[in-house]
Amino acid sequence: MKRPPSPYPFWYRKIPEIYTNGNYSFTFGQTPSQVHIEEQIPSLETILKESNTSSAAAVLLVCDTHTEYITKKISRNRPTCVLESGETQKNWGSVERIITEAREVGLGRDGLFIGIGGGVITDLTSFAASVYMRGAGLCLVSTTLLGMTDAAVGGKTGFDLLGIKNLVGTFSPASHIYMSLEVLKTLPSREWKSGMAELIKTAVLDSAETLDLVKSKKMPFLDGALAREPGLHMKELIERAVLVKGRMVETDPRETGTERALLNLGHSFGHALESAAGLGTLSHGEAVAWGMIRACELGQALGITPPARAREITKIIAAYGYETAAPHSLLKDIRTFIKALEGDKKKKAGKLSFVVPDAERAVLVSADIIGLRLLEQIINGDLQQ
Amino acid sequence: MKRPPSPYPFWYRKIPEIYTNGNYSFTFGQTPSQVHIEEQIPSLETILKESNTSSAAAVLLVCDTHTEYITKKISRNRPTCVLESGETQKNWGSVERIITEAREVGLGRDGLFIGIGGGVITDLTSFAASVYMRGAGLCLVSTTLLGMTDAAVGGKTGFDLLGIKNLVGTFSPASHIYMSLEVLKTLPSREWKSGMAELIKTAVLDSAETLDLVKSKKMPFLDGALAREPGLHMKELIERAVLVKGRMVETDPRETGTERALLNLGHSFGHALESAAGLGTLSHGEAVAWGMIRACELGQALGITPPARAREITKIIAAYGYETAAPHSLLKDIRTFIKALEGDKKKKAGKLSFVVPDAERAVLVSADIIGLRLLEQIINGDLQQ
Repeated sequence: MKRPPSPYPFWYRKIPEIYTNGNYSFTFGQTPSQVHIEEQIPSLETILKESNTSSAAAVLLVCDTHTEYITKKISRNRPTCVLESGETQKNWGSVERIITEAREVGLGRDGLFIGIGGGVITDLTSFAASVYMRGAGLCLVSTTLLGMTDAAVGGKTGFDLLGIKNLVGTFSPASHIYMSLEVLKTLPSREWKSGMAELIKTAVLDSAETLDLVKSKKMPFLDGALAREPGLHMKELIERAVLVKGRMVETDPRETGTERALLNLGHSFGHALESAAGLGTLSHGEAVAWGMIRACELGQALGITPPARAREITKIIAAYGYETAAPHSLLKDIRTFIKALEGDKKKKAGKLSFVVPDAERAVLVSADIIGLRLLEQIINGDLQQ
Repeated sequence: MKRPPSPYPFWYRKIPEIYTNGNYSFTFGQTPSQVHIEEQIPSLETILKESNTSSAAAVLLVCDTHTEYITKKISRNRPTCVLESGETQKNWGSVERIITEAREVGLGRDGLFIGIGGGVITDLTSFAASVYMRGAGLCLVSTTLLGMTDAAVGGKTGFDLLGIKNLVGTFSPASHIYMSLEVLKTLPSREWKSGMAELIKTAVLDSAETLDLVKSKKMPFLDGALAREPGLHMKELIERAVLVKGRMVETDPRETGTERALLNLGHSFGHALESAAGLGTLSHGEAVAWGMIRACELGQALGITPPARAREITKIIAAYGYETAAPHSLLKDIRTFIKALEGDKKKKAGKLSFVVPDAERAVLVSADIIGLRLLEQIINGDLQQ
């Protein structure tokens, strides 16, 4: 088992002290990336000004049928590429459509792509911008809780191929990312549930204090108060998630070390479940929530996750109403699952690795010490308490 | 007209003093990239060792039907993706095939793509490697004169879309690039002609001395001695081309400044001619050679290129047997040409720019000061002497 020399970076536990007025600046690799957490959606003028885009340069707005109404509030006259919504649209065909429309409006390297939507739209737009003429300008307006807490920050772009999530992609951060709390008011409940799972994950990686903050949102989540007043209830939690992810990505922007990989807590099992159930069947968060419990079981079996810690994480996930039992009700065939697991991108020297919670945070464990038998027991639910 | 503050970087004119034993190390952005100029093709063992690739990691060789025989000399047992040859293959379908075969052989982020061929194969393999799981290992074996003097060095990757050359691409240098002079013995004469144009361009950007070296190769080029004994005749010229391009790219790896853009001498007119004639009809070098003469005419009209300099460049290009007259015999419709020219990637703030030779090297000129009428005169041959 491999543990990073110092699992806790310098900023750990200092996050609450460095809160700002909703504006957060990161540098991913050599690329500056700013996040703006505000009540309202930004105007096109604000986006153009902050991204230093010349008024002569071409702009293409990209959204899906769900976020078209938000896009119209940003601009009614600028060229807009409206895609169908859903994970099944996350393919080369959508990228080609974005690129074709950019070409038609004469967008050059100094032009700007603005992606307005959840993770599918921001990942697709970011990928298209990163390869269009070898890189054009990019801003994002993240409109889902999952996007704000995960997809929109950190520069991972991509689309699915051969049934594998984000098999094709780049590291290419947006210069500006806007998160508007008011748009969460119209978010469907399934999307809330998907996003909350990433918030729970962030809390596990951050601190007992953040985990307490997540716990305190359970009732307002279940009775709908979060959705009615997201500006009141969600600002601090989203700020923490952005800061935790942002600082971790700054430490290890291209996931060549172990720091960024910790963000994959619950994702090895989760992605495999998404693939095995058929991409788009389960929401990403539902799959990750289920995957985190499997990670706890794995960590316990390896003696890394203290039983009380595993119980606490499992209890929170169950309280939010996620499916926790193994085998998952949508998992038809364990061999499909194992194959998807083995195709995981996070391989080094041909070896899988897993993130499991430890007493305070989480660590990366090489699959060297994990037998296939143990994985099968976990997926089948033989280790459940 | 915009001129860079100091058009001559520190290494200019010092290149002959820093010749090494055929091994050249560059750093493009933050990525190290080494070029090895040798008589023979490298063995697979050499490639794996030099690129620090674990013996446990998966490897995919990529070539086309022309370079399959070279690939078999490198390895007979490793998985190989053989594409059809030609510029028309430079599309998403080919990238998808490379990615699909990589996935089938279980290639992970620590795996290695080895592209063996001319510019089409090295650009396609480099693009696939740069987006596969957001980036896997990459080595190139460049097998054409054009590839050695241009495509393989400097990290530009990509493929054609909507009839535009390299509309989709990334900046992603190979860690190791091998140039084997012996493979040039089997290079068809059209490929020799394509590569020599880039060598002439390099000489124009370098020095009178390199231009003299190019002139001295005219007879051995025309009587076939270059092709019979490339190891004897071509080593110094290829070394100079690699060094000139490598140092220029190091100065400006992502073409955000003006230095790398100078390498596009002849390319704005050349790319537009390639597009207007139909991609794959003309060789890249033939188009660039014709484009360089147009750049001289433009430079003269603007008072930047001294007439004696324009005459010398035109004379060398004509001596090598390139089509020099305007309009080009394959150009059917000037409007298609102008449209392709306006779609050029090298736009800033919606403006085209052109590279034109000056007394010693070349400079970048904004299209602000160039009227459409002047461009039409040049393309139609109205300014020819």
